[in-house]
Amino acid sequence: MRVLGIDPGLRNLGWGVIDVAGAKLSHVANGICHSTPGEGEGDLAQRLVALHTQLTDVLRLYQPDAAAVEHTFVNKDAVATLKLGQARGIALLVPAQFGLTVGEYAPNAVKKTVVGVGHADKGQVDHMVRVQLPGVKIAGPDAADALAIAICHAHHLQSAGRLQAALRKAAE
Amino acid sequence: MRVLGIDPGLRNLGWGVIDVAGAKLSHVANGICHSTPGEGEGDLAQRLVALHTQLTDVLRLYQPDAAAVEHTFVNKDAVATLKLGQARGIALLVPAQFGLTVGEYAPNAVKKTVVGVGHADKGQVDHMVRVQLPGVKIAGPDAADALAIAICHAHHLQSAGRLQAALRKAAE
Repeated sequence: MRVLGIDPGLRNLGWGVIDVAGAKLSHVANGICHSTPGEGEGDLAQRLVALHTQLTDVLRLYQPDAAAVEHTFVNKDAVATLKLGQARGIALLVPAQFGLTVGEYAPNAVKKTVVGVGHADKGQVDHMVRVQLPGVKIAGPDAADALAIAICHAHHLQSAGRLQAALRKAAE
Repeated sequence: MRVLGIDPGLRNLGWGVIDVAGAKLSHVANGICHSTPGEGEGDLAQRLVALHTQLTDVLRLYQPDAAAVEHTFVNKDAVATLKLGQARGIALLVPAQFGLTVGEYAPNAVKKTVVGVGHADKGQVDHMVRVQLPGVKIAGPDAADALAIAICHAHHLQSAGRLQAALRKAAE
């Protein structure tokens, strides 16, 4: 099974793809979709189109079976929250347009799964992503976060799968 | 020239289409794209796909030459702002995917143009939309706001002397 993780952002939208075979995880690819701010009218809409096009290319190329997006921390800056929401709309839309169910995880849930503690810092997350995906080359901090989200979703799907298997066995 | 106005929202996304010929405005159509909240994982992504599909149908059917989206009031509720941002991302994306430049107007700018004062209430906006688009039947409050945004954008394009440029671009 192939899992896509996305760390949404308007300027830098990180993505990471991993393969899951039983308990074994392996790195497939990671990168960052960019949209640079312009000046003119209609600029924000054009930036969202740019993110949509780049993320669609990622889905076409790597054909993931499942996807998850970080449930972004809502801070006190409403303007930044609105901006992030717009980028996050694209991050959720594209995998769903490919027919995937899109999971959502709070940053603390991702850290808890990948590092073991919910309050881990960026460096610890980056380190544990490298440990769990040996030989990975990471395109940047947003791509590292996206890989962490993919790992978190893989663990979640596995434990959910084990639960389903156990339920099926119990029902036999 | 045909102008589309959009009032973004996750549950109800209002849209309104008007024709502009010189100083004369006429109503073409208005309505509301709906997405109903579900329960399961991936629900938010599915709702955004539903909005994207419905709004794409509106663009295909009415083929506007210009579009504008309300620059939503950023309130103090960060969760609501994030939710609105996600729907607004779709509202900006779809017209831009059709090659349109997407204008953005703050609610007060819309009211100022349509009613004459920036602090007009909903009832005054609704009334002036009906005065300027005789015989219009309005699908609901979100559609009335969307028509007001379309009227505002039409005036802006005219007064800024951008009408001819937009028509040339649309004719290309």
